[in-house]
Amino acid sequence: MNALQALTERRTIRLFQQRPVADADLATVINAARVTSCASNRQPLRYIAIRTQPLVDQVLAETAWAALVAPKRTPVPGKTAPAAFIAIIAPADAKPITYADAGASIQSMQIAAWTLGLGCCWLGAIKRENLHNILNLAPEKQAIFLLAIGYPAEQPVSEDVAGDASIAYYLDDANRLHVPKIRLEDLVDWR
Amino acid sequence: MNALQALTERRTIRLFQQRPVADADLATVINAARVTSCASNRQPLRYIAIRTQPLVDQVLAETAWAALVAPKRTPVPGKTAPAAFIAIIAPADAKPITYADAGASIQSMQIAAWTLGLGCCWLGAIKRENLHNILNLAPEKQAIFLLAIGYPAEQPVSEDVAGDASIAYYLDDANRLHVPKIRLEDLVDWR
Repeated sequence: MNALQALTERRTIRLFQQRPVADADLATVINAARVTSCASNRQPLRYIAIRTQPLVDQVLAETAWAALVAPKRTPVPGKTAPAAFIAIIAPADAKPITYADAGASIQSMQIAAWTLGLGCCWLGAIKRENLHNILNLAPEKQAIFLLAIGYPAEQPVSEDVAGDASIAYYLDDANRLHVPKIRLEDLVDWR
Repeated sequence: MNALQALTERRTIRLFQQRPVADADLATVINAARVTSCASNRQPLRYIAIRTQPLVDQVLAETAWAALVAPKRTPVPGKTAPAAFIAIIAPADAKPITYADAGASIQSMQIAAWTLGLGCCWLGAIKRENLHNILNLAPEKQAIFLLAIGYPAEQPVSEDVAGDASIAYYLDDANRLHVPKIRLEDLVDWR
């Protein structure tokens, strides 16, 4: 898939087919994170590929999904759950720059996944203490973010809106997710 | 360009051809940031496209570049300087999650730029107070990061290393930049 197409057509996915993701595909996704820019090339992040039961369900139980469309976009084990999670592991005392590194790596993984026909949801509302125990992390580490991944079972749409319009995402009568994005002309100042 | 190729072949560029970048290309790059994932779809970031003189030189003067290879990878105005900067503008009191949003948007821009034949350098070592004045930002805003952009005048290489090896980047005798990246097997824990 063309890179510009992947960048612009990718949508966050919250409903998944009940179909496994090949380890080779997960490796391709994490490899995209591996070669992503990071501050001073320090490479502070590590990754846990979570794709066996019951661990996937245990991790799912520690996540919260898009509040404005709950519970319709909260995956249900055995029905709409992601096949896997990638836990992004960072130092427990991560500074803001490490959050920036994590965001960059996650976006690389989302783009790589999309080219493989996979959908992702970047999860920040996670119970980190519980995950720390479930994943048996060292005291000086944390699961800074999770990335849910699987074959999409929904087709969200993006729509351009003015900078002063509502950007609240919503479900229409056909249960399709709409995601308003501020139009380019209202985001950029040309100098 | 294929997305997986762009993700893995992209390198950070710090020496640039003295050739302008079309506004249409800058718009394509910033549009990739526009549709990037962000927490709760809040879209807290704005962008300033800086591509006129003397503003580009003024901004360049407020940046610091890869310390380990200075001054050979510190761009010189009129010789190796980037054609443009994209300033990523965030609330002055940005929380870590906004840094994550910024990292994701910057990675999207770097991938989009690479597909257009452009190179980028994500800059975090910037004099934010001076930039605040130069860019005439509102008090509640900050330039959280800069992205330098232009046509590449170097071809850095990445090399895979073990997790316990040195990850210090370096210039070889031919003035080529080498960037060690920890190999995948030492970054991922499979569960």
